[in-house]
Amino acid sequence: MTAPTVSPGAARQGSADLLRSVFRRHAAGVAVITAAGPERPVGFTATSLSSVAADPPLLSFSVGTGSSSWPVLSGAEHVGVHVLGEDQGELAGLFARSGADRFGPGTSWRPGPEGVPVLDGVLAWLVCRVVAKVPAAEHRLVLAEVVAGSPEGPAGSSGRPLLYHGGRFNALRD
Amino acid sequence: MTAPTVSPGAARQGSADLLRSVFRRHAAGVAVITAAGPERPVGFTATSLSSVAADPPLLSFSVGTGSSSWPVLSGAEHVGVHVLGEDQGELAGLFARSGADRFGPGTSWRPGPEGVPVLDGVLAWLVCRVVAKVPAAEHRLVLAEVVAGSPEGPAGSSGRPLLYHGGRFNALRD
Repeated sequence: MTAPTVSPGAARQGSADLLRSVFRRHAAGVAVITAAGPERPVGFTATSLSSVAADPPLLSFSVGTGSSSWPVLSGAEHVGVHVLGEDQGELAGLFARSGADRFGPGTSWRPGPEGVPVLDGVLAWLVCRVVAKVPAAEHRLVLAEVVAGSPEGPAGSSGRPLLYHGGRFNALRD
Repeated sequence: MTAPTVSPGAARQGSADLLRSVFRRHAAGVAVITAAGPERPVGFTATSLSSVAADPPLLSFSVGTGSSSWPVLSGAEHVGVHVLGEDQGELAGLFARSGADRFGPGTSWRPGPEGVPVLDGVLAWLVCRVVAKVPAAEHRLVLAEVVAGSPEGPAGSSGRPLLYHGGRFNALRD
């Protein structure tokens, strides 16, 4: 413990506003989560994707129960997880925009393992089996086990990820 | 669904190696998680920090039960969560290195709200109450509610976050 440089008096009480202000400083990689629906696929942009454990291979992400994907996702046994490249800000915006036609003619995808929709042109993708949906207020923390996938991006891709920070998309410096 | 650009035959079976290969493509912001211990504080570098819900304000991170911080963290009611700046790669390395003296003379910190160790010089920090520890293989997914904090980095800071990608620290391009 050394000399203080920030007064503890600067602390604010916990609130939604404090959480948002702090996470505006934080950066995240950008993923798209998909699931097969009875009529058509669903999907959404997530900045909460995280690796959790290696054996078995587990990852997590969170989803709002008010999101348009939730009615399908809540019953899905398998999900698709896609790591977006730095040139895929448009795709990330599409899968984040309310009311957008996310699987329309502009989106290139195919049915992958377990019938899960797999997006073309991403840096890497996984198909995962949902193993837990942990309630967290109006959200669910989804824990899923990797069953298949590919870490190979498209030929000619820079291999560099899309980032999200301070309300907009960004990329790596180096 | 449009013309395929990647053959579905490229898919590999789920494994720890596949998970690692895919997450080497993914980028993450870098945080340090701390907790007060009976003798001295504990802390570790996390690339799994994520905002989960706003009301109540909830976040999540994961921790290995084999980590040196776990014996203290497993019993902690409150934790500190710190968003690191792009110039704090050294601090991130210290809190990731096995056997390092993480709260030695080189680390500037103070006891914050609820007695939680708060690091100086970070972009933003929160003190959170642990509300769940979800088992996930040899890891725990920790869900915590924000009780206090500050989104104000030190004067003169760029305000830009430290990133982790492909096994090394990095920064934002713009």
